[in-house]
Amino acid sequence: MESDYGLPRDLSHLQLARSLYKPELPPCLQGTTVRVEFGDATTALDTAGANAISQSFPHTYGQPLAHFLRATSNVPDAQIISDHPAIRVGLVFCGRQSPGGHNVVWGLHEALKIHNPQSTLLGFLGGSEGLFAQRTLQITDDVLATYKNQGGYDLLGRTKDQIRSGDQVNAAMAACNTLKLDGLVIVGGVTSNTDAAYLAEKFHQSQCPTKVVGVPVTLNGDLKNQFVEANVGFDTVCKVGSQLISNLCTDAFSAEKYYYFVRLMGQKASHVALECSLQSHPNMVILAEEVVASKLTIFDITKQICDAVQARAEKEKYHGVILLPEGLIESIPEVNALLQEIHRFLRLGISVDKISSRLSPWASALFQFFPPFIREELLLNPESGESAQLSQIETEKLLAVLVEAEMSKRLKEGTYKGKKFTPICHFMGYQARGSLPSKFDCDYAYVLGHICYHMLSAGLNGYMATVTNLKESLEHWRCGAAPITVSLALK
Amino acid sequence: MESDYGLPRDLSHLQLARSLYKPELPPCLQGTTVRVEFGDATTALDTAGANAISQSFPHTYGQPLAHFLRATSNVPDAQIISDHPAIRVGLVFCGRQSPGGHNVVWGLHEALKIHNPQSTLLGFLGGSEGLFAQRTLQITDDVLATYKNQGGYDLLGRTKDQIRSGDQVNAAMAACNTLKLDGLVIVGGVTSNTDAAYLAEKFHQSQCPTKVVGVPVTLNGDLKNQFVEANVGFDTVCKVGSQLISNLCTDAFSAEKYYYFVRLMGQKASHVALECSLQSHPNMVILAEEVVASKLTIFDITKQICDAVQARAEKEKYHGVILLPEGLIESIPEVNALLQEIHRFLRLGISVDKISSRLSPWASALFQFFPPFIREELLLNPESGESAQLSQIETEKLLAVLVEAEMSKRLKEGTYKGKKFTPICHFMGYQARGSLPSKFDCDYAYVLGHICYHMLSAGLNGYMATVTNLKESLEHWRCGAAPITVSLALK
Repeated sequence: MESDYGLPRDLSHLQLARSLYKPELPPCLQGTTVRVEFGDATTALDTAGANAISQSFPHTYGQPLAHFLRATSNVPDAQIISDHPAIRVGLVFCGRQSPGGHNVVWGLHEALKIHNPQSTLLGFLGGSEGLFAQRTLQITDDVLATYKNQGGYDLLGRTKDQIRSGDQVNAAMAACNTLKLDGLVIVGGVTSNTDAAYLAEKFHQSQCPTKVVGVPVTLNGDLKNQFVEANVGFDTVCKVGSQLISNLCTDAFSAEKYYYFVRLMGQKASHVALECSLQSHPNMVILAEEVVASKLTIFDITKQICDAVQARAEKEKYHGVILLPEGLIESIPEVNALLQEIHRFLRLGISVDKISSRLSPWASALFQFFPPFIREELLLNPESGESAQLSQIETEKLLAVLVEAEMSKRLKEGTYKGKKFTPICHFMGYQARGSLPSKFDCDYAYVLGHICYHMLSAGLNGYMATVTNLKESLEHWRCGAAPITVSLALK
Repeated sequence: MESDYGLPRDLSHLQLARSLYKPELPPCLQGTTVRVEFGDATTALDTAGANAISQSFPHTYGQPLAHFLRATSNVPDAQIISDHPAIRVGLVFCGRQSPGGHNVVWGLHEALKIHNPQSTLLGFLGGSEGLFAQRTLQITDDVLATYKNQGGYDLLGRTKDQIRSGDQVNAAMAACNTLKLDGLVIVGGVTSNTDAAYLAEKFHQSQCPTKVVGVPVTLNGDLKNQFVEANVGFDTVCKVGSQLISNLCTDAFSAEKYYYFVRLMGQKASHVALECSLQSHPNMVILAEEVVASKLTIFDITKQICDAVQARAEKEKYHGVILLPEGLIESIPEVNALLQEIHRFLRLGISVDKISSRLSPWASALFQFFPPFIREELLLNPESGESAQLSQIETEKLLAVLVEAEMSKRLKEGTYKGKKFTPICHFMGYQARGSLPSKFDCDYAYVLGHICYHMLSAGLNGYMATVTNLKESLEHWRCGAAPITVSLALK
């Protein structure tokens, strides 16, 4: 498998034009005299969990914020890192691919070479599997040439799993030791940056000299707080998604006979669905967070949609676009309870065909009420985290079927007098995820890659690269690093 | 319903920028001295059906090709249409919306106004329904302002039905008479242009003075022959589709665990699937025409895919992208026979739940073999033509399920030794259909709109607007009109 990654390849005209674009650096990162300045010590933003977090991360909790600044003449020479020893760095793509990921590699490679051409950047092939197996690709200008500003993670491939178990942590540490890495860069979202925090703590405890740093790259956009303003990939995915949803809005109004049910990515957080709604103005959006807050049942949600369809029919409108995040299904209280039961049985190794007969009476009734296709999907093994396989559960189709049944019932009872309700279902996950990154994501990821170098050069461990002031133009971006522990929310 | 169409509306920045673009005209259509020149009389390209066609269209069959040329000084004055009486024209969008349709309206409106500001263009609201009910919107610069170079058919809405029955033809004729139309422009694909040919013949027979002309606008791209080089919308839909498929290719390789099954639009013709394959290089494409030619069964197709999956697994590749057209299901001989039986029972008014018990033994066995979701979809009423509701039949999912079952069987039997096969299904229909038109489609549709004026001005009836030499730059485009009967293939 690994032999295919990182190969030079033919680019399309569009890809070629993109590969020629070179992002700029904010002034604070220009040149080779960038200095680090430390701020106040940090605590976890999750104040309720702060105690647990500080106990889990005794060596890496409470570290100060770091800021990267351009050395000016009135800064004492001692503070300027004027000597740049060659360092060896490994990088691994973790979790779902996110547009822009390749530019983190590019930015880091550039920064390493600018400061010392003898430095080495190794990419792990196939994500965590490649890390554990020490399968690497040395990053060079030639290797990078056809991956600059391109989508996907196909330069290196990506992990399918966490880096959390004892065996996994030991394998990662063995790799870092064997390869004599000064730094390990983990590119990923909430789960992967949490992994990075654990690795950093564990490496420190085990006196492994490799420093571990994280980069916030996740199209879900859910790794956000006062230090992490945005995640690489979110901008692209929302723009691509909004464009396609806008196409559907135009299409729905032109044909005047369909309701489109569109499921978008987003597990715990409905950020993608919300942002796409703001950009494309669909007729309705159902946010998982609102469902949780209001404890809406599947019947409540069905009724809300039916009432909206009916109100539109009264205005002679028989079309619409309804958005929902893939995480919606887990946010519905009674479905969540059912999933918990199923997952418990799956973990006990009970075979799929036996589970339905062992459900509690209440969960069983709900399960039997569902159409066969959704039953099959609810019985899928959960993902490596505790989540259901949300990309495989067709929640949009479930709602479409329930709404269709309810509208038929209303029609029969005479409470609805309009035309037949016709749904069409779409899942917009993978098309957007593999798309070419937006200019913002190209720039942002490239700058984060540079910051990785400065973090490792400053000896930071258990930190995440951050850029703030992102709403301003690039020359005003502020570059720094925050201990990953500030962002953690342990369960 | 109609009150919503054609309203001025807020445009996004992108839409606004697009609305400011104005296509150019090829030299032959510039100015107000365009002349028509007639070529040889035509016959039907479908030579086997020529006799039947000539009998069905006694008055409009065999008319000569028309060419529109710019008058030059050595052309006798008499041949130049120097006087341009005001005319009244109606336009109706028929069939599936296709990117670029709005520019036909724009081009026609511009040509009318240039030649005589007193001319009138009426758009029928809601397609054929609006034609029959004489619901119109007068096209003005203000009305058009926010629809130039935009996708969809939401300026006017579109037909959901054919214009073929006696009642429908009479209603259309009544509308043309009441509204005193000199011309009726039908914008659509194969079915709608066939309707236009019938209307033209019927109007002539009934001494209705309205001339009927057609414009080849269909994203399926299947209204093609030596006179009709391209259809408005096909270029856009293939570009948008190819982009999304390319994203999936990148995504599949990055994640290295999924096979994507992608269903594209295209009923009788697999042109969209073929063109998208040429542009995006998926791992496999299944073309309906090849299935028909080789009489492949559903089991043959399943086996072909499985063999490809297995061959890739032997090279440690566990990902791929497989394209298929929505029309594939009807091209499989035994499924086609089953659909014929189902449609016959549906036409006889037999209720859906009784049909499966009345199928022939052979069709029944196939029907029972299919998973429940596909059975339900096969039982849907056919579209207004004789086709099944192809947009609703999840052929990609059927194949994914069959391949998954076969790969599991091979795994159990030990003939396949690779990892688990995991399919993900996509239908890329509506996202592309509603998208913003490509520059080519903007230009081409606008020019066709201008040609409509010249066709009506020359008194042509039963003709379709044509542009040839489209591969060259716009200044070399040749503009003309061909009798619709040359393109017909009667069944």
